[in-house]
Amino acid sequence: MRQAGRYLAEYRALRAKHSLLDLCHDPALAAAVTLQPVERLGVDAAILFADILLPFEPLGLGLSFAAGEGPQVEHPIRDAAAVRRLPTPDPAQSLGYVCEAARLVARALPPHVPLIGFAGAPFTLASYAIEGGSTRTFTLTKRFMYTEPEAWHALLGRLAEFVGCYLAAQAAAGARALQLFDSWVGCLSPQDYRTYVQPHTRRTLALAAQEAGGRGVPVIHFGTGTAPFLEDFAAAGGDVIGVDWRIPIDQAFARVGPGRAVQGNLDPAALLAPRVERERQVRDVLGRAAARPGFIFNLGHGVLPETSVEAVRAVVEQVHGG
Amino acid sequence: MRQAGRYLAEYRALRAKHSLLDLCHDPALAAAVTLQPVERLGVDAAILFADILLPFEPLGLGLSFAAGEGPQVEHPIRDAAAVRRLPTPDPAQSLGYVCEAARLVARALPPHVPLIGFAGAPFTLASYAIEGGSTRTFTLTKRFMYTEPEAWHALLGRLAEFVGCYLAAQAAAGARALQLFDSWVGCLSPQDYRTYVQPHTRRTLALAAQEAGGRGVPVIHFGTGTAPFLEDFAAAGGDVIGVDWRIPIDQAFARVGPGRAVQGNLDPAALLAPRVERERQVRDVLGRAAARPGFIFNLGHGVLPETSVEAVRAVVEQVHGG
Repeated sequence: MRQAGRYLAEYRALRAKHSLLDLCHDPALAAAVTLQPVERLGVDAAILFADILLPFEPLGLGLSFAAGEGPQVEHPIRDAAAVRRLPTPDPAQSLGYVCEAARLVARALPPHVPLIGFAGAPFTLASYAIEGGSTRTFTLTKRFMYTEPEAWHALLGRLAEFVGCYLAAQAAAGARALQLFDSWVGCLSPQDYRTYVQPHTRRTLALAAQEAGGRGVPVIHFGTGTAPFLEDFAAAGGDVIGVDWRIPIDQAFARVGPGRAVQGNLDPAALLAPRVERERQVRDVLGRAAARPGFIFNLGHGVLPETSVEAVRAVVEQVHGG
Repeated sequence: MRQAGRYLAEYRALRAKHSLLDLCHDPALAAAVTLQPVERLGVDAAILFADILLPFEPLGLGLSFAAGEGPQVEHPIRDAAAVRRLPTPDPAQSLGYVCEAARLVARALPPHVPLIGFAGAPFTLASYAIEGGSTRTFTLTKRFMYTEPEAWHALLGRLAEFVGCYLAAQAAAGARALQLFDSWVGCLSPQDYRTYVQPHTRRTLALAAQEAGGRGVPVIHFGTGTAPFLEDFAAAGGDVIGVDWRIPIDQAFARVGPGRAVQGNLDPAALLAPRVERERQVRDVLGRAAARPGFIFNLGHGVLPETSVEAVRAVVEQVHGG
């Protein structure tokens, strides 16, 4: 999950001077923000500072972040014509600033700390593109999906091509692992996941793997609320399956099956708990994953803004057995 | 699910003259709103017009609904002292206007159309009480739960007593089925559900059943996002287990086990789909539940405001085999 964020004073200080998009657009700033928390938190990997919605800029959708309001899409996709009008930008070029930030970070990091690149998965990106921002019900997204299935598949196909190549470009720029975020896919029924999403995620991951596989760069396939269809989610691909706290991690291992790693899955809210309860929950995750090769400890979703840096550090130390 | 809502022109007309709370507070108006959609939609049961947060008024939390903003709690519960300060109103008396509405509706309905009463479950109510309104992350709720476990259990215990008796009072007033809504419980891990919620839901349902059981009034226990812990959810009680679209209904039957009915589970977004896709999804639910005694067709959550009345009617007719 993103390491830099509002819970870090040094991040808030930078954000007082620069907008979120400004930080993303400037490779030197993005690299600095990426590096800031790594030493501070003592984590095993750095996560590139970027936003999953950056592809919306070269795709001509228009992207802004209103203070405290989340992302806003200036030209949301509401019909088939809007899908047809989408330009076909080159990901490595149009988001070259992200790749440049990756190069800067990869050079600056000590060799034992790999850089993780990432991108949003087609469904999650499409949901923002169609809704025009955040949503609780995904009403417009599902209506589009059911009403314009051809345009839906065209849109997700386009996003799959873009995102797959974008991830590949990050691997070429020095990312040593990649993560695909299908953050909101849990709003769907298992049937709809298979019909409307899975083929496009599969294509995305296959494209990323073309570049990443040759470099030995593993790809993490992450989603929240995927417990109801975890087998299908895993079948779409990924060397590592990332899950949220809604499934015990031992069950996730069993359902993902052999030959793949599993990442997760502490509830980010556990970092707001008193020490004893927080440590108990970390111990529970570690215990359930004990003796499993290929377990990667992580939160089940992003760090909540209310989190203290001390709590994050303490979890890292506990996981390291310190 | 609530039948009256913004998707109905006659409801919008009434809301132009009365606030949501005014409609709830006036038994004659609430009864009229309850009856309005029943004939129009052709449904098999009427659902009492009320709001799950009405208990917040006698509990002294202060409740309002800002236009388009959802509920707002004037005095949210943020510490153990606030739990201790909660008054102990009598549900049947303090929400007597709801019971009166139930009596009016029960008298007005034709005998073959039963009235369903309902209430919010302790967890879902507590989440609103603590957050002070709607939330996506349940951050304050979980922090309270982890940080003040004694106060948490005291709060949910109090809500369980209130809600259990409130449901019982609705049965006494003429409701011929009851539904307990634990709408947001899917934000929890299965472990947290068992520790922090299940005992209180069990108590609520047991209290309701004391009155309802003797009258032959079944209780529906509904939640969304419960697929990861459906066995535990069902173990808390309920003659009927209501599920959302995130689990195929045949799997829900299998996991709930014999001796209980299952209610669900069309994605409300399916009512925004073109006819062919909507009918396919209804057929899929009916097919999966075919030959199961104790299946109750319903949506997996509330009617979306964007829904057309014609679509609701068409689904009712399709389910009736018309």
